[in-house]
Amino acid sequence: MNNKRRICFIITSRIHYARNKILMKLVNEDPEFKTQLIVGGSALLAKYGDILPNLQADGFRSVDKLYTSIEGGDNIAMSKTTGLAVIEFTTALQRFKPDIVVLRGDRFEVLAAAIAAAYLNKTIAHIEGGDLSGSIDESVRHAISKLSHIHFVTNEKSRDRLVKMGEQPDFVHQVGSLDIEFLAQTPPEILDEKHLNFTGVGATIDFKKPFIIVMQHPVTTGEDNFKNVNETLRAIQESGVQAFWFWPNIDAGTDDISKAIRLFREQHDQYQIRFIRHLSPEQFAALLKRAACLVGNSSAGIKEASYLGLPAVNIGTRQQNRLAGSHILNVVYDHREIAEAIKKQLAHGSYPSSDLYFKAGTSRLIFDILKKTPLYTQKKFYD
Amino acid sequence: MNNKRRICFIITSRIHYARNKILMKLVNEDPEFKTQLIVGGSALLAKYGDILPNLQADGFRSVDKLYTSIEGGDNIAMSKTTGLAVIEFTTALQRFKPDIVVLRGDRFEVLAAAIAAAYLNKTIAHIEGGDLSGSIDESVRHAISKLSHIHFVTNEKSRDRLVKMGEQPDFVHQVGSLDIEFLAQTPPEILDEKHLNFTGVGATIDFKKPFIIVMQHPVTTGEDNFKNVNETLRAIQESGVQAFWFWPNIDAGTDDISKAIRLFREQHDQYQIRFIRHLSPEQFAALLKRAACLVGNSSAGIKEASYLGLPAVNIGTRQQNRLAGSHILNVVYDHREIAEAIKKQLAHGSYPSSDLYFKAGTSRLIFDILKKTPLYTQKKFYD
Amino acid sequence: MNNKRRICFIITSRIHYARNKILMKLVNEDPEFKTQLIVGGSALLAKYGDILPNLQADGFRSVDKLYTSIEGGDNIAMSKTTGLAVIEFTTALQRFKPDIVVLRGDRFEVLAAAIAAAYLNKTIAHIEGGDLSGSIDESVRHAISKLSHIHFVTNEKSRDRLVKMGEQPDFVHQVGSLDIEFLAQTPPEILDEKHLNFTGVGATIDFKKPFIIVMQHPVTTGEDNFKNVNETLRAIQESGVQAFWFWPNIDAGTDDISKAIRLFREQHDQYQIRFIRHLSPEQFAALLKRAACLVGNSSAGIKEASYLGLPAVNIGTRQQNRLAGSHILNVVYDHREIAEAIKKQLAHGSYPSSDLYFKAGTSRLIFDILKKTPLYTQKKFYD
Amino acid sequence: MNNKRRICFIITSRIHYARNKILMKLVNEDPEFKTQLIVGGSALLAKYGDILPNLQADGFRSVDKLYTSIEGGDNIAMSKTTGLAVIEFTTALQRFKPDIVVLRGDRFEVLAAAIAAAYLNKTIAHIEGGDLSGSIDESVRHAISKLSHIHFVTNEKSRDRLVKMGEQPDFVHQVGSLDIEFLAQTPPEILDEKHLNFTGVGATIDFKKPFIIVMQHPVTTGEDNFKNVNETLRAIQESGVQAFWFWPNIDAGTDDISKAIRLFREQHDQYQIRFIRHLSPEQFAALLKRAACLVGNSSAGIKEASYLGLPAVNIGTRQQNRLAGSHILNVVYDHREIAEAIKKQLAHGSYPSSDLYFKAGTSRLIFDILKKTPLYTQKKFYD
Repeated sequence: MNNKRRICFIITSRIHYARNKILMKLVNEDPEFKTQLIVGGSALLAKYGDILPNLQADGFRSVDKLYTSIEGGDNIAMSKTTGLAVIEFTTALQRFKPDIVVLRGDRFEVLAAAIAAAYLNKTIAHIEGGDLSGSIDESVRHAISKLSHIHFVTNEKSRDRLVKMGEQPDFVHQVGSLDIEFLAQTPPEILDEKHLNFTGVGATIDFKKPFIIVMQHPVTTGEDNFKNVNETLRAIQESGVQAFWFWPNIDAGTDDISKAIRLFREQHDQYQIRFIRHLSPEQFAALLKRAACLVGNSSAGIKEASYLGLPAVNIGTRQQNRLAGSHILNVVYDHREIAEAIKKQLAHGSYPSSDLYFKAGTSRLIFDILKKTPLYTQKKFYD
Repeated sequence: MNNKRRICFIITSRIHYARNKILMKLVNEDPEFKTQLIVGGSALLAKYGDILPNLQADGFRSVDKLYTSIEGGDNIAMSKTTGLAVIEFTTALQRFKPDIVVLRGDRFEVLAAAIAAAYLNKTIAHIEGGDLSGSIDESVRHAISKLSHIHFVTNEKSRDRLVKMGEQPDFVHQVGSLDIEFLAQTPPEILDEKHLNFTGVGATIDFKKPFIIVMQHPVTTGEDNFKNVNETLRAIQESGVQAFWFWPNIDAGTDDISKAIRLFREQHDQYQIRFIRHLSPEQFAALLKRAACLVGNSSAGIKEASYLGLPAVNIGTRQQNRLAGSHILNVVYDHREIAEAIKKQLAHGSYPSSDLYFKAGTSRLIFDILKKTPLYTQKKFYD
Repeated sequence: MNNKRRICFIITSRIHYARNKILMKLVNEDPEFKTQLIVGGSALLAKYGDILPNLQADGFRSVDKLYTSIEGGDNIAMSKTTGLAVIEFTTALQRFKPDIVVLRGDRFEVLAAAIAAAYLNKTIAHIEGGDLSGSIDESVRHAISKLSHIHFVTNEKSRDRLVKMGEQPDFVHQVGSLDIEFLAQTPPEILDEKHLNFTGVGATIDFKKPFIIVMQHPVTTGEDNFKNVNETLRAIQESGVQAFWFWPNIDAGTDDISKAIRLFREQHDQYQIRFIRHLSPEQFAALLKRAACLVGNSSAGIKEASYLGLPAVNIGTRQQNRLAGSHILNVVYDHREIAEAIKKQLAHGSYPSSDLYFKAGTSRLIFDILKKTPLYTQKKFYD
Repeated sequence: MNNKRRICFIITSRIHYARNKILMKLVNEDPEFKTQLIVGGSALLAKYGDILPNLQADGFRSVDKLYTSIEGGDNIAMSKTTGLAVIEFTTALQRFKPDIVVLRGDRFEVLAAAIAAAYLNKTIAHIEGGDLSGSIDESVRHAISKLSHIHFVTNEKSRDRLVKMGEQPDFVHQVGSLDIEFLAQTPPEILDEKHLNFTGVGATIDFKKPFIIVMQHPVTTGEDNFKNVNETLRAIQESGVQAFWFWPNIDAGTDDISKAIRLFREQHDQYQIRFIRHLSPEQFAALLKRAACLVGNSSAGIKEASYLGLPAVNIGTRQQNRLAGSHILNVVYDHREIAEAIKKQLAHGSYPSSDLYFKAGTSRLIFDILKKTPLYTQKKFYD
């Protein structure tokens, strides 16, 4: 074994991969690092597109894939998946013996990876800690931070919060958002309009007219996801605006949302919505740059829309307390409120771009720190 | 289903049960509560004594037992046990559907229970959060706190820390330590000297002369547990003092410690140590009240010894940063330092009792709060 | 606890439930039995339709549901699912404490249930043992038989085979097939033609003209499922016959088949195939009674078609060595051979009904045996 | 990847390793093979002695270790361990990609390995199939055979049985017993009498006088293991003969046996039994060659004793129906019967050696077949 610094990235979804790729390539091409990938969760599911050929084409050699998703689409499946994932990540990390494990975000597979890495005495670098958002995701994000050693946060507020939570200031780095960096670097011209109208089901979108994007994820803390998605569908139907509706991720509650969409389609002969399950992150970024408004409860309405100045309608509590810009109108799950907000935002048009979550050269900043940071495993509370 | 408040206690060791019993009985005997027990981890292993008959005799009716301990005795086994435990706790909690899940401490099974409870949207009450201690246990303790909703801390410093970490002040209650309450209520007269000299192996202890107690747990963050325990064995041998040595818990590293003890016994014809694997918590409490000094890296040296004014020698970093009284001498894993500190403490004798961790009526305080506290599952960071 | 005989049925798919319902209702309505259901595998997935409301409507009270399916759609996911299922079935059986566990078939979840039941010392009754079929399913079916105590086989050859394998003749009962009983009892008039043309995607079927049914499952022993399904698609396209194509079950290889179908649809503007993912077992049975030919590698081509006299084209080795009637033409995965065989069968038309797999009153026969059979757990090889 | 034949041995206990070592070394030293080891179960537990250093010293390079034993010591733990082991073996086999997986025996970890290997389409070679023995082990052994492709049996009766069960005669090889080969090759002079009297606890054995060996494993199908072991203890106490008592394996029921032994020791001041938990397989073989009688329910009483002509007292049904020689007296779990049988056997003395389970050059025979046998994965029932 030589003394290269071994960096293990945990990839749990395709979009996650797309947004980490600039960073990962920097690391992979540097001879002082040995790069390792552990791929699990939805990133592996063929129905979302197999990413292993992509990983090879992108030059990654040490790749382990983990089967951790237990089907069920509800809270129980999510919790059990976390358990299975801890077992599987332990095996994979034991095999790779990395010096640093790089995690990102707040999903249950990421918590699982953090636990395995912590018990195996690895130095954990966590990206996107410190944010507030509501939902179980926020608690999980903070729990991951308390197991991590090096923090790459996207904004100053999150930096302050992590230090207050006892993390060592020298190891909390504000580097901006990898997502926004990815968005900024994606050229809008790559948008393949024809392909989009062939993808998914529903209405054909006329790109010469304004269209909105809807992303509504299930909420796992006891909400009625079926009803909530119906409110949004009704609001859009009433607005008469064209919309791309993106299917939710595979959180608990997904099946309720799928059911609501299916029923909507069966009950309406006429509608202007195109429902899409999967789109490449690059196409999605390009589409965002062309949209007139973003509606739903995705963090894209907070972060990506902030950078683009894209008017956003944020529904419900899923993103509550995230650091949010003035481009957002917050509403509850009520079709009247949602329709009204969409109308206002379409009338308003673009907002100025904000750098709340943007910092130039995010990947390079992280790369430099991964290269030089001292490593440690025994944490000490910063009192 | 009636509207009794359903309280589910998670029990992961025999000692844990002994120390929660006053509280659990209060809850169990109150008609407004429905009490549920989930028993797992070492509490179930027959070699530690089956506690199920005890639970029945103590009046608990709704008991589920979980098999979660994966054998191996090292970090990998610990991590995989956590994963399996998440799966099993999910099943058990799904079956019991409690209103409040009461967790305690910082062990990996407790983290597993916290994750399952969080994803199942239960209100989590956590006992003993906010302490600093070093070791992976501290990170895990804080992660559990960030998943919990109601906090019962043992001291003011821990209360301040949890609030700083973003927990709502109204839900962080300083109630003192259940362990100290248990210790305070255990009469020293129950000590069964004859039984003690029949239990375990090694020298016969003369209770008319001073004796010390040694408890040295494995440290999971990369230390050489084999060497460390040898230093302590040598220190005691050189001190010539009588000692009860208590076998470690089943953390990673246990096997190294067992091996060191076995070799010590094979290599020494003469020694004054009695090695004991298991003692009832009641007998142990009584024994503590008779000891001349407590040596090792157990939290008993910090907490129990503080209340008793029992001189303690704390070795290494496992308890570092815990709120500690003046009855402690801190040393590193070096036989000379340890021997020297034992000598000093024996010469010093008793210290005054401290109430750093003691508050009268701890169980009653917790009980009252469990009864009246509003319940919630969606956390909100206290900024 | 009273002395009712406790019968626990393991249900792992919706179709499995439909076909066991006559038997299960007989048991459930008899006061000498206590009926228990453990539902897992694809039976639980919402995308296949939640069966829990059905179970309640059908009068079943003691139902436990298990999450055991690990996503991935390949051999690895199948194997790991088996492992997880053993863990989960153990918990469920430990809770229910049945006298008899009734299993059926050869799928991996069923093997998992058999293992759990065997180690928990339950009497296992297995339905459909002794058949030959090729594929890993056959080995698994025999392994389940060797763990089982009471056997309900569908044909004489299977009875002989189990006795030869060492099963006690007194406990091997030839009772005919529950599937055929279900088929026989389903009236063809319930067919909802309009609903069928609304279900799934692809061509609209003209029910006044002949149509065929295609069911091609993935094969798990190293075959190229993608290529194989392409051959069949091409054969049908060349035949010009109308077809209902039913999506495969969730075995390893499913994703390859899905991909082949997706590409076929994208590459052909004109085709006469309707692709259907899920149809109720009742509708499917009615549809079978109206079809002109059955094509693929499903056991329906062997068993159901045999009873109906429905011409069948059996492709590849998946059903090899099953006891098969003269209504079948066997071909390899080659579009020319398949198209030729379809043509021949359409020209031939109906065959006489066979009772190879049919026996009147199958459910009643099983019910009577479950009621009176002596129970035992220690097996003795019949030499 | 070159075209060496990759052979993966599954090792689940230390004794298992000792007895396979001659074969494994033959394979490992042949350049046409690539040898892989997967080590799990009790082979990994430090309290039984870590075998990894041994494996390295013996020249094995590709070793993966699996943590699969769930603590609990009863049926439930055994069943859940099987499930966890399927998950872990799947990972390990997926990584090693062997051509042949070599399994041995009938324990639950072996069933787990067989399932993983079968679903991953590996050729499975199984050693010691076809025997009858009673207990759940027999059913499991037959289930493993039905999942396996190449069989190495120890006697003619087992060969006939496997063929009758549908295994292809060309792939069922009678090669004698690896255990007996190991026994035959172990020189009795290596016995370390002093070490034996230092190992374990209890009476000091006088090697100049006759002594017996007791091995009583728990029975998992509902027997009262606590009572059974008491009968044997009482029988030996009444016989007045010296005895080495070997602790049982870690099957369900172990804890009951441990408890019975502990109570016996506490209740008797005088006894002539030495209780030993672990002895190296080599020392045990040498000890067998010096013993006057073998008592209990271990297969050693059937197989090893047969070759040595060692008088044996076989208790209960655990070995029932195994092919047994005339050196055995069968008794039930009754102290009078057991004591009487011991007395008779001591009076009788040695029996002639039998070759029921012995064939010269067992390892070489297996090695030659592994080298030349055609491989296949799709089984075909031999009707």
